[in-house]
Amino acid sequence: MRPSGRKLDEMRTVSIETGVVKHAEGSCLIKVGDTHVLCTATIEDRPPPFLKGTGLGWVTAEYGMLPRATGSRTRREAATGKQQGRTVEIQRLIGRALRAGVDRAALGERQIVIDCDVLQADGGTRCAAITGGWVALRLAANRLLQTRAITSDPLPDHIAAVSCGIYAGQTVLDLDYAEDSAAGTDSNFILTGRGRLVEVQMSAEGATFAREDMNRLLDLAEAGVQQLVAAQKAAIA
Amino acid sequence: MRPSGRKLDEMRTVSIETGVVKHAEGSCLIKVGDTHVLCTATIEDRPPPFLKGTGLGWVTAEYGMLPRATGSRTRREAATGKQQGRTVEIQRLIGRALRAGVDRAALGERQIVIDCDVLQADGGTRCAAITGGWVALRLAANRLLQTRAITSDPLPDHIAAVSCGIYAGQTVLDLDYAEDSAAGTDSNFILTGRGRLVEVQMSAEGATFAREDMNRLLDLAEAGVQQLVAAQKAAIA
Amino acid sequence: MRPSGRKLDEMRTVSIETGVVKHAEGSCLIKVGDTHVLCTATIEDRPPPFLKGTGLGWVTAEYGMLPRATGSRTRREAATGKQQGRTVEIQRLIGRALRAGVDRAALGERQIVIDCDVLQADGGTRCAAITGGWVALRLAANRLLQTRAITSDPLPDHIAAVSCGIYAGQTVLDLDYAEDSAAGTDSNFILTGRGRLVEVQMSAEGATFAREDMNRLLDLAEAGVQQLVAAQKAAIA
Amino acid sequence: MRPSGRKLDEMRTVSIETGVVKHAEGSCLIKVGDTHVLCTATIEDRPPPFLKGTGLGWVTAEYGMLPRATGSRTRREAATGKQQGRTVEIQRLIGRALRAGVDRAALGERQIVIDCDVLQADGGTRCAAITGGWVALRLAANRLLQTRAITSDPLPDHIAAVSCGIYAGQTVLDLDYAEDSAAGTDSNFILTGRGRLVEVQMSAEGATFAREDMNRLLDLAEAGVQQLVAAQKAAIA
Amino acid sequence: MRPSGRKLDEMRTVSIETGVVKHAEGSCLIKVGDTHVLCTATIEDRPPPFLKGTGLGWVTAEYGMLPRATGSRTRREAATGKQQGRTVEIQRLIGRALRAGVDRAALGERQIVIDCDVLQADGGTRCAAITGGWVALRLAANRLLQTRAITSDPLPDHIAAVSCGIYAGQTVLDLDYAEDSAAGTDSNFILTGRGRLVEVQMSAEGATFAREDMNRLLDLAEAGVQQLVAAQKAAIA
Amino acid sequence: MRPSGRKLDEMRTVSIETGVVKHAEGSCLIKVGDTHVLCTATIEDRPPPFLKGTGLGWVTAEYGMLPRATGSRTRREAATGKQQGRTVEIQRLIGRALRAGVDRAALGERQIVIDCDVLQADGGTRCAAITGGWVALRLAANRLLQTRAITSDPLPDHIAAVSCGIYAGQTVLDLDYAEDSAAGTDSNFILTGRGRLVEVQMSAEGATFAREDMNRLLDLAEAGVQQLVAAQKAAIA
Repeated sequence: MRPSGRKLDEMRTVSIETGVVKHAEGSCLIKVGDTHVLCTATIEDRPPPFLKGTGLGWVTAEYGMLPRATGSRTRREAATGKQQGRTVEIQRLIGRALRAGVDRAALGERQIVIDCDVLQADGGTRCAAITGGWVALRLAANRLLQTRAITSDPLPDHIAAVSCGIYAGQTVLDLDYAEDSAAGTDSNFILTGRGRLVEVQMSAEGATFAREDMNRLLDLAEAGVQQLVAAQKAAIA
Repeated sequence: MRPSGRKLDEMRTVSIETGVVKHAEGSCLIKVGDTHVLCTATIEDRPPPFLKGTGLGWVTAEYGMLPRATGSRTRREAATGKQQGRTVEIQRLIGRALRAGVDRAALGERQIVIDCDVLQADGGTRCAAITGGWVALRLAANRLLQTRAITSDPLPDHIAAVSCGIYAGQTVLDLDYAEDSAAGTDSNFILTGRGRLVEVQMSAEGATFAREDMNRLLDLAEAGVQQLVAAQKAAIA
Repeated sequence: MRPSGRKLDEMRTVSIETGVVKHAEGSCLIKVGDTHVLCTATIEDRPPPFLKGTGLGWVTAEYGMLPRATGSRTRREAATGKQQGRTVEIQRLIGRALRAGVDRAALGERQIVIDCDVLQADGGTRCAAITGGWVALRLAANRLLQTRAITSDPLPDHIAAVSCGIYAGQTVLDLDYAEDSAAGTDSNFILTGRGRLVEVQMSAEGATFAREDMNRLLDLAEAGVQQLVAAQKAAIA
Repeated sequence: MRPSGRKLDEMRTVSIETGVVKHAEGSCLIKVGDTHVLCTATIEDRPPPFLKGTGLGWVTAEYGMLPRATGSRTRREAATGKQQGRTVEIQRLIGRALRAGVDRAALGERQIVIDCDVLQADGGTRCAAITGGWVALRLAANRLLQTRAITSDPLPDHIAAVSCGIYAGQTVLDLDYAEDSAAGTDSNFILTGRGRLVEVQMSAEGATFAREDMNRLLDLAEAGVQQLVAAQKAAIA
Repeated sequence: MRPSGRKLDEMRTVSIETGVVKHAEGSCLIKVGDTHVLCTATIEDRPPPFLKGTGLGWVTAEYGMLPRATGSRTRREAATGKQQGRTVEIQRLIGRALRAGVDRAALGERQIVIDCDVLQADGGTRCAAITGGWVALRLAANRLLQTRAITSDPLPDHIAAVSCGIYAGQTVLDLDYAEDSAAGTDSNFILTGRGRLVEVQMSAEGATFAREDMNRLLDLAEAGVQQLVAAQKAAIA
Repeated sequence: MRPSGRKLDEMRTVSIETGVVKHAEGSCLIKVGDTHVLCTATIEDRPPPFLKGTGLGWVTAEYGMLPRATGSRTRREAATGKQQGRTVEIQRLIGRALRAGVDRAALGERQIVIDCDVLQADGGTRCAAITGGWVALRLAANRLLQTRAITSDPLPDHIAAVSCGIYAGQTVLDLDYAEDSAAGTDSNFILTGRGRLVEVQMSAEGATFAREDMNRLLDLAEAGVQQLVAAQKAAIA
């Protein structure tokens, strides 16, 4: 009944390849089905100005989509001179989600910038960006630990994200583009490796939803995130 | 224990004054405690281009904050030449939330623009904007019905929004600025008058949260929205 | 013969309510007929860079109009990314006019920013902004005096502004929108409480004018400003 | 007593050379002392959209200053991505002033764009731009008459502008930069060839002024404009 | 003597993988050593407005660099709101070069947009973009031929580009970043498969150069382009 | 056979008038036929930030075109808020070319900004800007030497530029607009007074070209630049 033939609670194939950009302090190419996102981490020695003197670090994110990552070409934001509302919203979400998993005192007064660029899009790009972004962040943190720039691990747990939705009246896990564009309710769940909630976003797109729907979608998400965390572990091993 | 002395499940005083801008097709000034938002509705005869010929209408929203609505002056976005990420995120939310309550076929090929401008901010401006924005929208829809521009009501139910959060370890309803800036988890719930969910946004700001927290916060929100809907009904009576 | 039924030399009703925004160091809502402008004053401890080390202060102003302050909706400047020429011209005028009444040495090395936001427009918004902006400025100066941040009064006199014009061949005081859009000559006079001139702006819109017209319009303005100054005095009493 | 040694009512030398840009429908280089402005007129066959179908034409103006027209280099507005407030204010003034002298029905549904670019600045650039801009406009109108694109003259009279001010306590005509930057009151008068007023702008810069000052400055301006009109006549002869 | 140990006339390893973005009408990932550029072609049914009714088509290009394609992070142009001069210059070059190899009448009234995004940079990104961009263009043209949207081939010959320079006093082929940043003269040669010149760009960076240098660099380039054309042929086979 | 009746190797008349802007440290108006460019040099005491502490100076350039320098009016870049790609490309070329002729250690830690503004365009504006820009730079360097701000000459040789092209199948020198817009190949050669190459730019516009064409065009350019250098010498004498 799903366009892809997947079961209701079946995720797409996930692969995470690390070390794909030689210059970055951490990098990976995450593929969740046909959604491909290149994630890099850049360590900056200075924190943002508002943190000077606090002993705390910062993690921020930027998100972009190559013009032809999509079915029809999207205008290049660098050329239009403006990031679209959707882009701004997504990169704020990625930064907020990753920061929620960071021990900012352990990181010290520095900033890590996570760049997530979608090479090919097929639904769920923000979730893939968070899951892959965490891997890039993990690799950058490892480098700080290896070079003894920091001495305690600033990343106590994994962060990963998955979308769920109500498609054709059914709650389904990990929406692809065909499902996403037809879903009545769309949601993104960001969880830690231990299953704590970091962020929940649920939106009625065609129809409002009930409290039980919310809980059913979360059931799916909890299972999906476990698989993503396993893929993260395999990638950084 | 709350800075304002309110009980954990106590909302701030809500008042909604309609007809405050003589030019607008619908308008109100909503006050939720010290948060004051001016909401206007503008009826445009033409829908956005992508709806030409579909018979469907559209509702969109813009959000702004006067520079001195806040404790320290915020730079005027018109002068900086750019809406901040926060502004973009909020106005997309308002538009999405209000659209979820609109029968777009009943509205017909026209657009209603809801402008929400914060005159004074004390936490919860996006929720006040949605609750007040719905009143402005309701008044504009009434005008379309009265002038027989449309014949069936495009607004089958109320839409209202409230924030909840985990403050000092407790789940509390309707955060003011003092609470919002110290909350460990912050959430916004948008519901219909009949209690269906329109949008849920929950964010770990200082600490991740558990599934039970999510449900407890929703309990508070359901009660709060009922009070907001009552205030909406009184205002448009 | 005037659309409003007013006499040629009759102003609209003026009201000035102070203390309308709790965060601002000075604020008022000025209503000149159906023109409503919210004015706030912000005290900034640092002067603009070009005044560092001079011992002199600065007063500047910004002007905005809510999208639906007008009969048909005006596009939001924050969204278009650019202040219109008219906005820039008006806010430069407000700043220049208010500065002309400030003893900048008495103010010391700080800046006061006056924000004037039009909630509802019916002609004469720049004059209302100057008249109300002076009240906000006066209240902010009072606060500096009360906290002994400064010791001598930086505002030796009132500043107020009124528009006059040639409408249907007659010189009239305080044009509303209906008159303004049909006037052959439009002028703004800014005066001090003692009747000294601060700024004169006269423009032929449909027909050029004679030297005698200039003097007749000034006669009207002198009388109008006296009433505005009286309203200012009542508001700050 | 004036820095230049001029008498109080003495203008700088004025020269107007026409035909300086071969592509333009009208052009001149106006020199008022060391202030040099290149003015061109472009005839566009279509009026601005808001005039479609009205039978009326439009005249508009743009103003610019080469980066090194000034004593210290001014940043290029094309490079900063934004016209400064001063530029916007001046070009609106030029357009408004020239339009006041145009019979827009005689011009018909077309637009003439006047570009005024300051090659060298020494005070009074906006007045020189208006005076020279009118010459470029006159030449363009002549071309329309010669090619019988229009049959009645759209320019019934000359338009010219001069600045006056109160410098070192004296009312003086045609301020140069040294005077302008030290003047207590600065004014610009725009008049027709027959002495009717088109626009008056008077600003207290260091000190407020009295009604008699206003009339004394106008006396000077009336005499100055006559000399400018004579120079315009000589140029277009 | 070259940092990479290559011989003076030795190119880096070139690989071109096609079909890397499923949505695009043509795509490839070109790797010239550590320089990796993703190139996609988008067919648009409408030509740019200036070609309406001419029967001619158009090819244009856009170029971007992911923020961490470089050794230190480059600011994202979408976020700064502006494409840098270097970006603009490069994408104009790519478009001009590819157009020089297109029979625009055979292409008909449509546009092909080539997007070249640098995933990893190590010198010579503009040349790799042209060489890879031509492959994407070739694949898009093939699709037009296969679907019989066009009937004669719009690409009579290959287009490929290579950089040469004077490094440490020697003329060398295909500069990598280490060489490029130290070269006295830098040049880019764009040639057709048959060896005709499309574009030559030579710049003295540290030292001017002689006419014989120009010819020696061209000798190298001719040999290098032959290898690139061979790689193109292998990729599209 | 050339539209202007010139011989294949005949340049247009060149004139260079210096001292045309009284404020600038160096200035000239260069006329190459009907192409007129105003060039000014501004000496800034501080180098760009990346040169602080290196002992080296910098030369940069900005280029602009007055709106009506061209046959039909070009939109003012200051008004559109953006420099066009062509402008950016040209000003980068001018700066690069002039810097190639500067002994940056002799210049010391300061910057010279060359502004080139086209008053009237008839082809070859970038070449005229480089040739005239060098004169302005030479005059500014002279002033630094005269005031003993520097002690050794930072300009060891002349820099001048000329365009050549293949027009109607013939190689011609110094293209005017009529030729430029019809040329099959267009090229710009920048040389020193001693005939060393600084920059070569050759572009196939309608037809690719052969290696012999490249050398024939350079023959023409070498002769043309000698005439330009003679004109520079006469101007600064």
